[in-house]
Amino acid sequence: MVSQIIRRLALVPQGGNTGLVGGSVPVQDEIILSLSRMNKILSFDPASGALVAQAGCILQNLDDHVAQHNFLMPLDLGAKGSCQIGGNISTNAGGLRLLRYGPLHGSVLGLEVVLANGQVLDLLRTLRKDNTGIHLKHLFIGSEGTLGVVTAVSIQCAPRPSSVQVVFLGLESYAAVTQVLSKARKMLGEILSAFEFLDAECMRISTSFGSVNPLGSAPASDAGSTQSGQIFPFYALVETHGSNGAHDREKLDAFLEAVMADGEACDGTVAENVHQASQIWKIREGISEALPHCGAVYKYDVSLPTPLMHRLVEEVRAQLAQWPGALALGYGHVGDGNLHLNIVSPKAYPDLKAQIEPFVFEWVSNANGSISAEHGLGQMKADAIYHTQSPTAVDVMRSIKNLLDPQHILNPYKMLPKD
Amino acid sequence: MVSQIIRRLALVPQGGNTGLVGGSVPVQDEIILSLSRMNKILSFDPASGALVAQAGCILQNLDDHVAQHNFLMPLDLGAKGSCQIGGNISTNAGGLRLLRYGPLHGSVLGLEVVLANGQVLDLLRTLRKDNTGIHLKHLFIGSEGTLGVVTAVSIQCAPRPSSVQVVFLGLESYAAVTQVLSKARKMLGEILSAFEFLDAECMRISTSFGSVNPLGSAPASDAGSTQSGQIFPFYALVETHGSNGAHDREKLDAFLEAVMADGEACDGTVAENVHQASQIWKIREGISEALPHCGAVYKYDVSLPTPLMHRLVEEVRAQLAQWPGALALGYGHVGDGNLHLNIVSPKAYPDLKAQIEPFVFEWVSNANGSISAEHGLGQMKADAIYHTQSPTAVDVMRSIKNLLDPQHILNPYKMLPKD
Repeated sequence: MVSQIIRRLALVPQGGNTGLVGGSVPVQDEIILSLSRMNKILSFDPASGALVAQAGCILQNLDDHVAQHNFLMPLDLGAKGSCQIGGNISTNAGGLRLLRYGPLHGSVLGLEVVLANGQVLDLLRTLRKDNTGIHLKHLFIGSEGTLGVVTAVSIQCAPRPSSVQVVFLGLESYAAVTQVLSKARKMLGEILSAFEFLDAECMRISTSFGSVNPLGSAPASDAGSTQSGQIFPFYALVETHGSNGAHDREKLDAFLEAVMADGEACDGTVAENVHQASQIWKIREGISEALPHCGAVYKYDVSLPTPLMHRLVEEVRAQLAQWPGALALGYGHVGDGNLHLNIVSPKAYPDLKAQIEPFVFEWVSNANGSISAEHGLGQMKADAIYHTQSPTAVDVMRSIKNLLDPQHILNPYKMLPKD
Repeated sequence: MVSQIIRRLALVPQGGNTGLVGGSVPVQDEIILSLSRMNKILSFDPASGALVAQAGCILQNLDDHVAQHNFLMPLDLGAKGSCQIGGNISTNAGGLRLLRYGPLHGSVLGLEVVLANGQVLDLLRTLRKDNTGIHLKHLFIGSEGTLGVVTAVSIQCAPRPSSVQVVFLGLESYAAVTQVLSKARKMLGEILSAFEFLDAECMRISTSFGSVNPLGSAPASDAGSTQSGQIFPFYALVETHGSNGAHDREKLDAFLEAVMADGEACDGTVAENVHQASQIWKIREGISEALPHCGAVYKYDVSLPTPLMHRLVEEVRAQLAQWPGALALGYGHVGDGNLHLNIVSPKAYPDLKAQIEPFVFEWVSNANGSISAEHGLGQMKADAIYHTQSPTAVDVMRSIKNLLDPQHILNPYKMLPKD
């Protein structure tokens, strides 16, 4: 079907359209190729955990399906209720649990892809190991629909944990966040499934729009305090996935005792049930939901060496003084070195983005980071690619694009910079 | 240095030369480019676990290095004492613990590659997440040195487990092996690090050359028995890697109790110390060491749906009746659906390979398997690629080969079939 549509007209493959860099939005007169109706689950093998599904399946639906067999999708992200697996693959979505379940390059078993010439490239195997020739499927993971349209996916699911624990900690400094991360790696080991952080600005914004801070409730006499009470400079959300609840709680108790005794965490709470756990996750996920209510938002998604992550936020704050009311917030997947730096401004100052964006990209480039950790380049960041990739690398990318899509009909003007 | 050597002469990149399909051996007059002296460890970051090393580093040496910081290389294989990391990457080595630590496509963070035109492609980042353009590094993982020469590697190491447990089980049937695997996945969950199987022929050969079978010792009165006593039809080696020895032993005891109580395992033993664990691993690793002493050996390394894995061995055995003394042995990474089928024959019958090989490849192809799970295609299996890959896929591979190496000077006559 898709192969019959692909002819000579430029087109934009579109999944759930939840991307943040305009990758699934036409630039000129491209046709949108929506995959939404290709939403069938083709098979699931409970012996191996291999799921085969059409590209338009919504991630949440796939996770619900494999949950019936006690399996878990190996990726999870805030947009899971609307993003589609084909888009996840095409953008190499990272998300909340990459720390534990690894990147999609490790868990995708096979793909079906329609090439620019209309040929169907059938790589839809369910094997864990296959070393026969060039590993073509990886070309289509993360190349944002510019080399082919992913129409079906085979993916390795993980056993669903019988025990999920969530801890929320308040900390005095970013250095403490990294110390607690190091301790979590050591003491929680194989059960650690997520390690997220947020700073005080994030907590203020998230709690202003409905999240509840479970730490540091104000004493009853303090009538002037906000509903969320005392705010710590930093927070960490630590999650475990395990197969034995008693063992997991024992590891977690030892971890908590150590981070409190060593003074790394000032306060902490363990979710006692699923409801409390989801309330804690809501603080983290509520940040990006709250931001659009606060003004113009500029989003950056960068990879940095973990110790440097919040220094960038602080240096951006220093730059922001010239735009009254503009705030920088830092949060993200600290366990993967992935910072979400968001700038929110009550007014859309025309020069703010023009001045801040080069500052951020150069700072990240100087730190050997990536200007796009998981969001991709799309149309908004394509021209910034040289901040992370060398001219030789971009030349090789261009030559592959020209080889597989000589007429540039697949998602044109995206990912690669203008000549 | 490598970029100065690459000019117009055909060359064969060679690491530890431990491959099994002739991938690192010249076919005609190609020059061998040995990476052995590029053996420096460039950096290790104990905060993130990112190791950067030159391609000629021996896997064992890298593991010893990161062990000092309580980290573990994310791959392990029998040849670790001589194979090199550049060769591991170029062949997408799988090995004993892929089940736990995933494929190299998930753990390689970056590469430095010299292209056929002498350009150095610097993708040597240490970031866990980077979505800036086509994910080029994956082109060089598993393409057997035909697209570029890997000269340096950046790889994500895993925390080294403080507790390693090894269990060895004797079983009556292959069905029992798969049942025990399923139970191990459920009851050992996140600590399961390897699940290997071997059949009775493997045990006989391995124990004839120095391994000791810890199960079913013969009664003292049975003077005619072999040193290894009673032989079960199948054996399973189950290993765990964990961060808490008491928890791991508790999980393992419950697992053992369940597989014995349910009659899936007939006998079993837990290694009480490192020496006993290495004795058990020696049975598994001793198989391929013993085979060359027994005659001509034909090796097949295939991926199959787990339930079918040993049926292929049995059907090959039925075919072998016409060659007196020829034996088929089945063992391998059952947790990954990866069977090592070995045929050993006291005489090198000229027609044995000619008749058995097409039978094996067609059988695997009909079962939607892969004719090379982890060994690659090299020069010995290049022409068999169509048993696993479609003509469209092979055409795309050829076009990428022609794009990146138009003169076919990089490892010619390997991996891709003759035109």
